[in-house]
Amino acid sequence: MTSTRATLIQVAERAGVSLASTSRALHGTGASKAMVERVRAAAAELGYSADAIGRSLRLKKTSQIAFAVADIGNPVYVEIMRGIHEVLAPHGYRVVVMSTGDTAASTAELMHSLHGGFVDGMIVIPLRTDDELIEQIGRAPVPVVVIGRAMSDRGISSVSTDSAAGIGSAVQHVVSLGRRRIGFLNGPLDTTPGSSRQRGFDEAVSAKDFAAETDVEVAADFTVAAGIEAARKLLDRPRRPDAIVAANDLLAIGAIRAARERGLSVPRDVAVTGMDDTELGQVFLPRLTSVSLGSAERGRAAARLMLGLADDAEAPARQISVGTELFVRESTLDQNAEDAE
Amino acid sequence: MTSTRATLIQVAERAGVSLASTSRALHGTGASKAMVERVRAAAAELGYSADAIGRSLRLKKTSQIAFAVADIGNPVYVEIMRGIHEVLAPHGYRVVVMSTGDTAASTAELMHSLHGGFVDGMIVIPLRTDDELIEQIGRAPVPVVVIGRAMSDRGISSVSTDSAAGIGSAVQHVVSLGRRRIGFLNGPLDTTPGSSRQRGFDEAVSAKDFAAETDVEVAADFTVAAGIEAARKLLDRPRRPDAIVAANDLLAIGAIRAARERGLSVPRDVAVTGMDDTELGQVFLPRLTSVSLGSAERGRAAARLMLGLADDAEAPARQISVGTELFVRESTLDQNAEDAE
Repeated sequence: MTSTRATLIQVAERAGVSLASTSRALHGTGASKAMVERVRAAAAELGYSADAIGRSLRLKKTSQIAFAVADIGNPVYVEIMRGIHEVLAPHGYRVVVMSTGDTAASTAELMHSLHGGFVDGMIVIPLRTDDELIEQIGRAPVPVVVIGRAMSDRGISSVSTDSAAGIGSAVQHVVSLGRRRIGFLNGPLDTTPGSSRQRGFDEAVSAKDFAAETDVEVAADFTVAAGIEAARKLLDRPRRPDAIVAANDLLAIGAIRAARERGLSVPRDVAVTGMDDTELGQVFLPRLTSVSLGSAERGRAAARLMLGLADDAEAPARQISVGTELFVRESTLDQNAEDAE
Repeated sequence: MTSTRATLIQVAERAGVSLASTSRALHGTGASKAMVERVRAAAAELGYSADAIGRSLRLKKTSQIAFAVADIGNPVYVEIMRGIHEVLAPHGYRVVVMSTGDTAASTAELMHSLHGGFVDGMIVIPLRTDDELIEQIGRAPVPVVVIGRAMSDRGISSVSTDSAAGIGSAVQHVVSLGRRRIGFLNGPLDTTPGSSRQRGFDEAVSAKDFAAETDVEVAADFTVAAGIEAARKLLDRPRRPDAIVAANDLLAIGAIRAARERGLSVPRDVAVTGMDDTELGQVFLPRLTSVSLGSAERGRAAARLMLGLADDAEAPARQISVGTELFVRESTLDQNAEDAE
């Protein structure tokens, strides 16, 4: 599982024939005998037959790894997927993206589908988790790696990050800027990210090493639209926040939109921080101050765990933790954003 | 193929047992005989056994449809996927997302992988097309629907849209606003979207029913980063454009960023239009004027074509064309965007 696999394209190039001919020859459909021999020889030279074809036809392996997430529209998942692809592609794996749905039950149903044998393994980010889902993961017929909360006690390989500490660093940042009324814009508390981020905010507040009022609003989900709705409530309070710490970049963008609706300037009237450090946040106007949870690195780490399990499915479960980092940009520091207008 | 299929969750609810137990019982792994009978009875009542299980185990059908695109990070694909999911989910299909890669050859290789039997069909948006790829599509072992240029002459079902006319409407819009130096920010000309959009721009210009200078810059790909690079060149010309018509929303956002780098106001100094009418463009600041190519509707149409082919793989190929619509917002109309600063 550590060698790089040849692709169909390389076989076609070696044989000096078209991709279509290569495909036909390898499947024995409509190719001349000479063509079949030529293509098989090229495939053998490149180790393609013994490897990729062998995997997919003889050994019933698929050369596919699933990446399963709740919301394919959230750009953080695209960045995690790029990290996964970067590590798996040189090993000949194709990454296919699937939706877990919103609930633990729908995620468990997806685990059940692994019995269909369509993929060699799954990297999953459950939005919500319960004991049944964890049991399904433990019993899955192919290796599963979880990105989310650490699963060491369950014998499941996982990649986690300290999003609670990340929220703490965002709170400290806005306090250091002199903000004194901090609104926390979280996602649903019964989700894995929502509960850990709430814990991070509560810990930062209870540490009491700063003097600021705090307020919390919980959005219906982790989207821009839900962020606009919830941020309106925060901004319409009698004591309006002068900083909003959001649980992800999409909610933060919702907060900026809600502020603009009210004629408020970001960051002058309200500083806004996001989390996930997505490309979307980086190109937004104003550029978003955001806590990176190491998206690409989490993807790469999960892919490396997957390769280990592909080598040896009985290998002991491993846990990897990825660090966080605050990136300060225009949505909290009022220089470029406002002046350029 | 027209009835709604029961899900594992519904079977578990009907049997009154956990999902994990349902999964075990249906696979005959570690469930008591009583449990197996109870779950099978519930499955039979709901038609689950004869349908979903039958499809995936007996008939070797997968209940999965692939959606293959070049860049999963482009939000337009998320919206098309939602349209596909909306139509296919009630029929018990799971949508799995795959990457075609950038080239016709890598897309052809993905077509070849369909021999693995991992999906019941594929909806594909090729970024680049050649004769080999078209031959691979025509010979695919499962139904394939193409979103992109019409494939009627090749006997392939396809969903297209008139992006050339869409570019024309964007050009007419900025001319109607009094702009007289129009820069066209396109993506690579050897791609399907790049070539059709270029044709649209050339047709609009050659119609000569407006008096404006025009200029063209081609970005390295259809991303924000490439858009920034190419827009800088347009904006640094001696005769700077007062309007930029971009070939998609990501390029348009790149153009806005490049304008801001130069201290230019959008839309006062430079009006900017996008294409695809993505959610990203709708939440951007300023909100993006954009030509909708009916993303969700293209997804729904492709999914309906797929359902037809799943019913009858020998059905004649069909072509559907989806309309376009210009949505005017802050990036060309200078009211809300600037005043709120």
